[in-house]
Formats: sequence, C-alpha cells, structure tokens
Amino acid sequence: MTVSTHFIHMKEAIALAQQAYAVAEVPVGCVIVKDGRVIAKAHNLTRTSCDPTAHAEILCLQEAGRVLQSAYLEDCDLYVTLEPCPMCAGALSWSRIRHLYYGAYDSKSGGVEHGPRVFEHTTCHHAPGITGGMLEEECASIMKNFFCDVRKKS
Amino acid sequence: MTVSTHFIHMKEAIALAQQAYAVAEVPVGCVIVKDGRVIAKAHNLTRTSCDPTAHAEILCLQEAGRVLQSAYLEDCDLYVTLEPCPMCAGALSWSRIRHLYYGAYDSKSGGVEHGPRVFEHTTCHHAPGITGGMLEEECASIMKNFFCDVRKKS
Repeated sequence: MTVSTHFIHMKEAIALAQQAYAVAEVPVGCVIVKDGRVIAKAHNLTRTSCDPTAHAEILCLQEAGRVLQSAYLEDCDLYVTLEPCPMCAGALSWSRIRHLYYGAYDSKSGGVEHGPRVFEHTTCHHAPGITGGMLEEECASIMKNFFCDVRKKS
Repeated sequence: MTVSTHFIHMKEAIALAQQAYAVAEVPVGCVIVKDGRVIAKAHNLTRTSCDPTAHAEILCLQEAGRVLQSAYLEDCDLYVTLEPCPMCAGALSWSRIRHLYYGAYDSKSGGVEHGPRVFEHTTCHHAPGITGGMLEEECASIMKNFFCDVRKKS
C-alpha cells in the first residue's frame, strides 16, 4: 500500500468525524480496511444511541466482524482520527487487528501513548503495528473546534 | 444493600457464566443492578456473534444504556464473574458505573488489578468502587473447567 493510500483512508475517517460533528457527537471517525478495500466505517454514537461503548472504533470492529463472520481481523488495518482510549485499545488487541493508524494524540483520554498504554504490557496478547500523528493537525482541529462550540453553548 | 444481596447478584452472574459454558463461549457472566433490581444481564458472546467486543460487561453496559436511555449509569453497580480486561475496565469508566464487584482474579488478561490497571491512572476520568474476589473459588473453577475441556478437545 502506498503512502498516499494511507492518507486516503485517513481522509475517509476524517469525513466520518465531520459527520459525527454535524449530529453533535464527539467527532471521531474510523474505517477498517482489508485488501485495500474499506469493509467497515463508523463514527462516535454514544449520545445518540445511549451507549457508553459506542466509540467509532468499537462500532467499526463490530461491523468488520459481521462482514467477515469472524471475531478476528488479522489481515485488517484500522484508521481512526484520534488516539484510541483504553477501551478501544483493548478491543483492538482482542480483534488482532494488524495495524493501527491514528491522527491526533490524546493526552487526556488516550490509552496507546498515554495513560495505561494498553499495548505495552506483557499481559497484552496482541499489539498491532502503530502509526500515530497521521494528518494530526486536521484531526486535532476538528476536536478543538467541537469542544470550543460545546463551551460556547454551555 | 446487605452482604447476602451482593452474593445473590454474583450468583446470578455465575448462572449466566454457566449458560455461556453450555454454548461453548468463554464462561463469564455479568449483571447490572439499579435500586436493587437487575436491569441488564449478559454472558460472553464473541464466538457466536463474531464480535471481538462482545464480552459480558460490554453487552451488559449496552443493555443498561438502552433500558435507562442514557450512556451514564451513575447509580448502577456491576457484578461480573471475572476481573474485567482493559477493554471492559475502560468501558466501565466511560459508563460512570458506581461499583464493580468481580469474582475471579485474572492475572493473564485482567486490566483492573493486573496489566495496565486502567483505573489507577490520572487520565482515568471515573473509577468505580471495586470489590474483587467475591465467590472467587466458584467463579475461577468455571473458567478452569472450561479451558480444561477446550484442551481435551484440541
């Protein structure tokens, strides 16, 4: 896969984050790719679906599992606009996803390069390859604008 | 709530773990209680549903969210037969659940008292009260027997 293909998939995740923004959900978007094809896509839906687990990554993993009829996604890569939280990092580990590409770093709630650093423990049964900071500025600005809007409204 | 009531709820979780065992799912059961009443119950379903996130706790949190029409479960307690993994511990944090009661300790995959110890980081926005080791022997023996069976069959 060429570098530009990775950016195309992150752009698809960014478009989903913008869809989340439009419906007042925390703007995080995610796609899962197998053999160069997007097989699952989602954005955060915690508020709309009254579901504390409905992060973009969780919904995407669930959809990919349905599509492939398997709980294991060994040959799949995941693109997400924000560093996964501990819940999502744990889910990625269980799914055996091959590579995680993410956009903005999340020093407040991240679980990959911050906080519990889920993949770095000997008890972690599977750690994907990790590429952080992809289109970081664009991904971070969506989050910044969203929370700026939230503060203005409150 | 009396001590015996807590044991009754853990026994309900154990019954669900046994249901999981009967359908060849990793035998973990979970209930969520609000005002003394069970509002959600689930057991692991990862294999059946081809969903890497379908742990008992995740399914239970999703059901409780639907029942209460809220992603936040502040006045709810969760009973689960096994120490939650990092994914489930992260989900419990997002849900703002009040108290976590669990049975067997999980030194291999746990995320509460083992591995990344999700609730112990300053970036953890909500940590529930925690009571581990409730009916530990009974909860642990279900897991032990299950994996013994799996090894015999393989």
